[in-house]
Amino acid sequence: MEDLALSLVKKRFGMEGGELLVGGVRAGALAEKYGTPCFVYDRRVFDEKLDALRTALPKRFRVAYSVKANPSQAILRHFISCDCGLEIASAGEFHQALQAGCNPRQILFAGPGKTVAELEVVLSNGIGEIHIESVTEAQRIGCICKRLGARANVAIRVNPACEAEGGAMRMGGRPTPFGVDEETLDEVLQLVLEDAALSFQGIHLFTGTQILDPKILVNQYRHGLGVARRVVSRTGRPLHRVDFGGGLGIPYFSHEHELDLTELRGALAAVFGEIESDPAFAGTEFMVEPGRFLAGEAGIYLARVNDIKISRGKKFLILDGGMNHHLAASGNLGQTIKRNYPMALLNKLHVPAEETVNVVGPLCTPLDTLARDVILPRAEIGDLFGIFQSGAYARAASPLGFLSHATPPEIWVDAGRDTLVTARGEFFGELPDNSHESTVK
Amino acid sequence: MEDLALSLVKKRFGMEGGELLVGGVRAGALAEKYGTPCFVYDRRVFDEKLDALRTALPKRFRVAYSVKANPSQAILRHFISCDCGLEIASAGEFHQALQAGCNPRQILFAGPGKTVAELEVVLSNGIGEIHIESVTEAQRIGCICKRLGARANVAIRVNPACEAEGGAMRMGGRPTPFGVDEETLDEVLQLVLEDAALSFQGIHLFTGTQILDPKILVNQYRHGLGVARRVVSRTGRPLHRVDFGGGLGIPYFSHEHELDLTELRGALAAVFGEIESDPAFAGTEFMVEPGRFLAGEAGIYLARVNDIKISRGKKFLILDGGMNHHLAASGNLGQTIKRNYPMALLNKLHVPAEETVNVVGPLCTPLDTLARDVILPRAEIGDLFGIFQSGAYARAASPLGFLSHATPPEIWVDAGRDTLVTARGEFFGELPDNSHESTVK
Repeated sequence: MEDLALSLVKKRFGMEGGELLVGGVRAGALAEKYGTPCFVYDRRVFDEKLDALRTALPKRFRVAYSVKANPSQAILRHFISCDCGLEIASAGEFHQALQAGCNPRQILFAGPGKTVAELEVVLSNGIGEIHIESVTEAQRIGCICKRLGARANVAIRVNPACEAEGGAMRMGGRPTPFGVDEETLDEVLQLVLEDAALSFQGIHLFTGTQILDPKILVNQYRHGLGVARRVVSRTGRPLHRVDFGGGLGIPYFSHEHELDLTELRGALAAVFGEIESDPAFAGTEFMVEPGRFLAGEAGIYLARVNDIKISRGKKFLILDGGMNHHLAASGNLGQTIKRNYPMALLNKLHVPAEETVNVVGPLCTPLDTLARDVILPRAEIGDLFGIFQSGAYARAASPLGFLSHATPPEIWVDAGRDTLVTARGEFFGELPDNSHESTVK
Repeated sequence: MEDLALSLVKKRFGMEGGELLVGGVRAGALAEKYGTPCFVYDRRVFDEKLDALRTALPKRFRVAYSVKANPSQAILRHFISCDCGLEIASAGEFHQALQAGCNPRQILFAGPGKTVAELEVVLSNGIGEIHIESVTEAQRIGCICKRLGARANVAIRVNPACEAEGGAMRMGGRPTPFGVDEETLDEVLQLVLEDAALSFQGIHLFTGTQILDPKILVNQYRHGLGVARRVVSRTGRPLHRVDFGGGLGIPYFSHEHELDLTELRGALAAVFGEIESDPAFAGTEFMVEPGRFLAGEAGIYLARVNDIKISRGKKFLILDGGMNHHLAASGNLGQTIKRNYPMALLNKLHVPAEETVNVVGPLCTPLDTLARDVILPRAEIGDLFGIFQSGAYARAASPLGFLSHATPPEIWVDAGRDTLVTARGEFFGELPDNSHESTVK
C-alpha cells in the first residue's frame, strides 16, 4: 500500500480484520452486494470536510458546492441538506440541482460559453445569480431578460491581474477564457450598471485549482478584497457578495500534503478581521465554492482483480474497470507526468506490500493503465482493489461509454446503512429475441 | 484553415460557396436542422476507405471493423452490409453488434480482462472466435464451455518478441497486458490443444496503433507469418486464421502523411505471393481489424462559435462543445504534446486565414482547449466550426457527462440524404413540476 492510501484509511475510513470499512461497512460486503466496479461514498467524510472548512472560514462566509466535481443526486441532496448553495456550470447541472430539490435562489451559474438556450432556462426558473464572463454575455443576459420580462442577479467573474504561484503572487495573470480581465473590468461593470434588467450583486474571482498551500489562498482572497474595494469605490455602495471561487485542493500523491486548515483559519481571521467594520464591506456576504475539497476524499473506486499475468518480467493486475470509469487515475486528465493515485488491495490492508506491479483496466488500449510500478501485497484473482480520493472528477469526468462496458453504480453509505443511489447502466438497448441460434448444445 | 483540413475538404468532402459539403449536404444546413454540437458522417468516405484497404490487401484477407473506434449502430450496420466482420472488446460491444444485426459467427472478441460474465454471454450466443490473452483466460473459457456444454473457437493473441519502430524491427518487445508473449506461447498453446472444449483456430498478432509507414506494417505481417509457421510446425496442420490486428493510421497533424496504400499493396503482394502455395498456409484466412482507418476520416465534429473574447492580447473562440464530446482533440487522450487536430470554420472555407486564436469548449476548466494558436479566418459569433478526422475515438472515447451538457447527436449522410441516427441526450430526468416559483414576471 502507498503511504497516502494508508493514512487515508486511518484518518477517514478505518478497517476491520485487514479490510477497509466504508461508513462502517466492510468494502468486501459492498462489492459483493452491488458488484464491481462501483463507486462508494462515505457520508461521514463529506461531513468532516464541510465542517472543517466552515471552521476555517471567518463569519459571513457561505459555502456553495461545485456540482461539476460530482453531480450525483445523492451528493447534491446531501449538500443541500447541509445548507450549502450549489455552483453550476451548465443548464444540465441546473436541472440536476432542481431535481435534487435545490431552491433556484441558492444556485450560482458560472462558466464560459453559456448559450442563449441555457440562459433562458435558468432565467425562466429563478436562478439566484449568474456570473458574467464577457461583454457578449452581459449584453446577452440583458436581451434575454427584456424578452422574458425578467431581471437577473449578476456578478462579474474577474480574471485577476496577478497569479498565485508557490505562495507568492506573480503580477500579470495569464490570458484565459474565464472571466473578465481585471484590467478591463470597468467596461463590463459600466454595461451591467447601465442595464436596468441586470441587478449587480458583486464579483467572483477566478482562481486556480488544486491549491494545497494556505498562503496562496490567503493571498488570492486578499487580492480579491482589493478588487472588490475598487468596484465599491466605483459603484458607491457595498457589494452584496464577493465569491472567492474554489481551488481548495486535496492530496493525490505521496509527496503532497493536506491543506493546513489551522493555518488557513488563522490567516483568514487576520485578513477578514481587518475589514470587519469596514463600511466598504458592510453587509457583504463572502462565498467559496469548492467541489474537489468537499467531495473528493469521500469517494472510493472499487474494482476487482480479474486476471494476473507476467509479461517479460513485469507483473500486471488486470481489473474489471479502468480509465473508462476513472480517467484521472489513468493520467489522461491534464497530468503531464503519470503518477499513481493512492490505492490499495482493500482486503489485504494488513498484508505487507512486497510486489511491484502495474495495474491496468480491461480496455484494449495501452492508455488504460491505472498504476505503474506500485508496490502492493501479493495479489490474487478476486482481490478487491480500491482507488482513493475518487469522489470528485473521477466518475464525472470519465469516458463511461468507451468500449461499452456497464457504467459503475454509486453506493452511499451512512453510518452502517448502504444505499444504491445510481444504478449500473448498460450501453445497449433490448437484445433482439432469438435473432441468432445459440451454439450451446 | 490548416493545410491538412484543406486537403481533407478537397479529397473527401467538397465545398459549395465556401461552405463544407458532407455527403453533398451543406454543413450549415445540417447544423441548422439538427443543432450543434453534433457529429456528422459521410457514407461515401467509409466506402472509399474500405475499398482502398481491400484493394491494397492480397487475396484471402478478410476485414473486421473494430467496434471500439465508434460503436454507433449506423456505422456497425454499414460495415455489416459491406460484408465485414466485427471485432469486439466487451460484452457491451457484443450486444451492440447483435443489435446491429451482425451474425455472431462474424464476431471476434479480443481484449485483456474478459470477465466470466462476459465470456458466458458471448459463448451462450454463438460468438465466432475468442482471442485468448492469458493462461487464466484459456482455463476460464474451458471451464465455462464445460458448464454450458459449448465448444469455443479460440485463437491465441500473441505479443511479438520484436517491436515495430520507425520502419525497422527492434528485437525484444515490451511487457504488455495484451496477449501472450511470443516466448511463452507454447505453454498456452499446449493448454488450448489439450482442452476438448476449445477449438483452436489460429493466432492474432498484437501490433501497434496509428501506424502510417507501410514498411512497419509489412514487417509486422512478415513477422506474424513466421510466428504462424512455428505454430503450424507444432500443431502439424495449417491454421484456420491468422489475424494481423489493426494499427493502420490516419493523419491527424500537418506533419503526418497518409498511409501509402500503393506501396503497402506492392509489399504485401510480394510477401503473401511467396506463401501462396505454401502447404503451411493451405486454406488459411488472413484478417485485419482496423477501426480508426475505416471510420476516422468519415466523421466531423460540428460546433458553433458561441462567444469571442480577448484576454490579455489573446483571442479565444468559445464553442458550444468541447472536450466533453471530443477528448482526443483536447490533447487529453494519450498525447504528451498538445497538437491541433485539423479544423476549420466550415462556413468560411474561401476566406483567407488571418487570425491566430485559441479555440476552447464551454467547460469551466482550462483542460477544455481544442486548439492553441491556430490560424483561422476572422471569426464571428454563430460561425460553424469543424474538427476533422473525428469518426473514430472521438465521441466514443469522450467524457460525455462531464459538466452535464447534452450528448451530441450523430447524423448519417448518404449522397444527399441525411438521417438522425443517434438522438441528442440529456443528463437529467424529468424536471419537477412547479417545484419552485419562476421569477419571470
